Amino acid sequence: FYSEEGEMDFKGKGLTLNEVNPYVRSIKVLDKEFIRMRAREIRKELLQGVKKPYKKLIDVSSGDAHMAGMKPISFLRQVLAVCLYPELLHSDRFPSDVEQRAQRLLKNCEGGSLGSYSPPCGIVSIRRSVSEFISQRDGGVPSDPDNIFITSGGQDAIRCILKILVHGEGHAQTGVLMPVPSYSYFKIAVLEVGGAIVPYHLSEEQGWDMQVNELRRALQTARGHCSPRALYIINPGNPTATGHVQSRESIEEVIRFAAEEKLFLLVDEVYQQTVFGEGSAFVSYKKVLYEMGPSYSDMVELASLHSVSKGFTGECGLRCGYVEFVNLDPEVKKCAIRLFEMYLSSSITGQIALDIMTNPPGHEDPSYPIFKAESQAILETLAHNARRVQETLDSLPGVSYQPVQGSLYIFPRLHLPPRAVEQARAEGMEPDRFYCSRLLEEAGVCSTPGCDVGQREGTYHIRLCNLVPLDTMEDMLDRLNSFHPRFMQEFS
Amino acid sequence: FYSEEGEMDFKGKGLTLNEVNPYVRSIKVLDKEFIRMRAREIRKELLQGVKKPYKKLIDVSSGDAHMAGMKPISFLRQVLAVCLYPELLHSDRFPSDVEQRAQRLLKNCEGGSLGSYSPPCGIVSIRRSVSEFISQRDGGVPSDPDNIFITSGGQDAIRCILKILVHGEGHAQTGVLMPVPSYSYFKIAVLEVGGAIVPYHLSEEQGWDMQVNELRRALQTARGHCSPRALYIINPGNPTATGHVQSRESIEEVIRFAAEEKLFLLVDEVYQQTVFGEGSAFVSYKKVLYEMGPSYSDMVELASLHSVSKGFTGECGLRCGYVEFVNLDPEVKKCAIRLFEMYLSSSITGQIALDIMTNPPGHEDPSYPIFKAESQAILETLAHNARRVQETLDSLPGVSYQPVQGSLYIFPRLHLPPRAVEQARAEGMEPDRFYCSRLLEEAGVCSTPGCDVGQREGTYHIRLCNLVPLDTMEDMLDRLNSFHPRFMQEFS
Repeated sequence: FYSEEGEMDFKGKGLTLNEVNPYVRSIKVLDKEFIRMRAREIRKELLQGVKKPYKKLIDVSSGDAHMAGMKPISFLRQVLAVCLYPELLHSDRFPSDVEQRAQRLLKNCEGGSLGSYSPPCGIVSIRRSVSEFISQRDGGVPSDPDNIFITSGGQDAIRCILKILVHGEGHAQTGVLMPVPSYSYFKIAVLEVGGAIVPYHLSEEQGWDMQVNELRRALQTARGHCSPRALYIINPGNPTATGHVQSRESIEEVIRFAAEEKLFLLVDEVYQQTVFGEGSAFVSYKKVLYEMGPSYSDMVELASLHSVSKGFTGECGLRCGYVEFVNLDPEVKKCAIRLFEMYLSSSITGQIALDIMTNPPGHEDPSYPIFKAESQAILETLAHNARRVQETLDSLPGVSYQPVQGSLYIFPRLHLPPRAVEQARAEGMEPDRFYCSRLLEEAGVCSTPGCDVGQREGTYHIRLCNLVPLDTMEDMLDRLNSFHPRFMQEFS
Repeated sequence: FYSEEGEMDFKGKGLTLNEVNPYVRSIKVLDKEFIRMRAREIRKELLQGVKKPYKKLIDVSSGDAHMAGMKPISFLRQVLAVCLYPELLHSDRFPSDVEQRAQRLLKNCEGGSLGSYSPPCGIVSIRRSVSEFISQRDGGVPSDPDNIFITSGGQDAIRCILKILVHGEGHAQTGVLMPVPSYSYFKIAVLEVGGAIVPYHLSEEQGWDMQVNELRRALQTARGHCSPRALYIINPGNPTATGHVQSRESIEEVIRFAAEEKLFLLVDEVYQQTVFGEGSAFVSYKKVLYEMGPSYSDMVELASLHSVSKGFTGECGLRCGYVEFVNLDPEVKKCAIRLFEMYLSSSITGQIALDIMTNPPGHEDPSYPIFKAESQAILETLAHNARRVQETLDSLPGVSYQPVQGSLYIFPRLHLPPRAVEQARAEGMEPDRFYCSRLLEEAGVCSTPGCDVGQREGTYHIRLCNLVPLDTMEDMLDRLNSFHPRFMQEFS
């Protein structure tokens, strides 16, 4: 076409930054990535033999149990191995319940293979396992497998639900109430679908409790500029799992508020199986809603999330979770089904992990003793580590905390000396990111600063994950013990 | 709050259909689902003992190899089983290369476990396997692992790429050229991100070839109402894999056209490993582009897709694929990375399947003979089935077809009698859906009508998948052989 068109210039690309979808262009590198990226560099430097005051990094920045060295549940992995390679059946290598479970699961896959496509909302028998788990958990409250949608993890479920809920612009733009502090992903997901964030603060002084007065304040403030339609709750909380393992009374209040204000309840309950605080227990929103009776139980709309990444399974790499819808309008549900159908289901390996998380070996099964010991050990590790962190924090100057009751994290407050705050600002950093950065460089501990998850202005925090092996935790505490007083001293 | 507010009415839900995001509301049940849904019902009826002229259904409506009864690649499943349950190492159960591969892969997972989160664009060593595979495939054309993004399958990759490319409204709305026929998902994905579809027809008479004149016509027509910025190509084609296993010359022409018109090339090459037609071979767009030299090789932007769901692996249930970007502007690439980071990677089990697809056992490895035999058998099954279908079609009245060269499908044309067309219209159906529906009811064969994948007006087709075991294919052909003449007779 040169000859046809003369010296045609097609230099310069079609797709320059200016031509990229403005939303995609606006996605910022999450600040939290700076600490993680630096941690990755340090890991490389250590491998290259660069001298540091420590031989290896300890990463307590995320809830990634297996990365931290926790062991998988044997039964789960055995069933997966047999499902993937059924020649392992009848090898006498595995307990009979492993073989039976694998055979049952394979029978429920098209063509008897994990290699076939899953039905869009998940394998029917696994949706049934999930609904039976829920019903048992909630003391018999009915659960319908048709209301269970299997997804590629909790975040994927959130993205789909938000896509259904959020629309409109200006005053009609859907507002979503979300807790502060919270993890950073949810905010991004709301912005991605064009929603408005309506932050509500958890009350640190009340053990990070969720308070209806604050919800009401947030709602009223937001009404000026958007239409709040959904309320996001994380219970047990992340990063705050103290008062925020919510009591039944607190949940009732929130449900009444949601009914009054016609808010859709989006409840992240992925930490439901890791509650260990004395006197605290997980109660699901669905159970409370059901027991409140009409016209709450038949009207308030609820989506509850769970995931194989958290809890005793900790299988982040398998990417699977579920959402249960309650009281969803039948026409809206049809829309939801069509949307989920477009997004193909979770990998079948993930779905099998979900089956086992929701339907683990029973008392009489040969795998039960080992399963029981392994899952118990994980809960005990969490409880033990939480106790040990709190003991250590007690002895550190300028640190306060709300006692931990569940979930995987502790979120102590740092009362930083003014000179530390000044120094941080001078280096262009949030004060708690400055603290975390020094903790990383000097002590080899990778953590999450409060500014990444949100906090009241002028307060500073650090999030530490408890789900690490006991010796890793002791090593981490030793490092914190020696770093923290030095840091405080330096800026006092 | 009853007492506070009197008889407050919170009856009526917050989320009615009117309050659902209009885009989500607009997603229609895909018509193709009607045939599949009916197939599901028939399967149930058969189980309940309802009498039919057949004992079981044969499903050739999709490219789902394992559902159809094809066997997985043993090496792939063995490595996965060992990775998931490393206690299987040193059990003498598996060849040494299985153990070595599993150990190497586990070393590259955080914490040595498939249960940890994957890095956002995929495990680094697996991105390297993919780039080495590409470079080898293309006779040494360099490939950089940093340009490989691992995704949860081809559709997931398409969704992310479209999200980057598509923006604007009115005349500035991004238009995406897509082939007709094509599979239905792509169109939905373009509409989801707010793009405009610009259809271009493949030429059935020229063996479903892709012709630049037609691309130019489509582009010029579209320019009136949108801004075409991307060209979607499926090579080898789906559903048409005849002339549409493109020749080098045809690819060169298309690249010249894309350069001239500054179109981003989005090339779906997921059937690259299943080409068997005599004298036809897969040549990648990237290789041709590279060999055209500057200023094509350094300017034309390209995204090439591949997936473990297709090819000899056929692992649809593991959900994994990759995209390789070529000539992407560095700033745009940064945006892409941030977008992909938001979407967490594919499941690690899927990534391991990808590693094995792109880096299978070598000649000297103990697993090589079995691997070779298994992958060869799949290609031979495809070639054999394609030949057998064509032989059968030759003998059927009112059917023509373009000879198959690759991919998993054949797409014959049905020259339906006018009375069949009238009857279909009277029943409110597209004529080829009517045909497929009768084929399903009377012969128990589930197929895809041409109207679901697009075709020139007044023409009718049927898509049949070839990737089924030989005996299933023979059974299917027997049924077609007896159904088709009866159908033609009935309406003649």
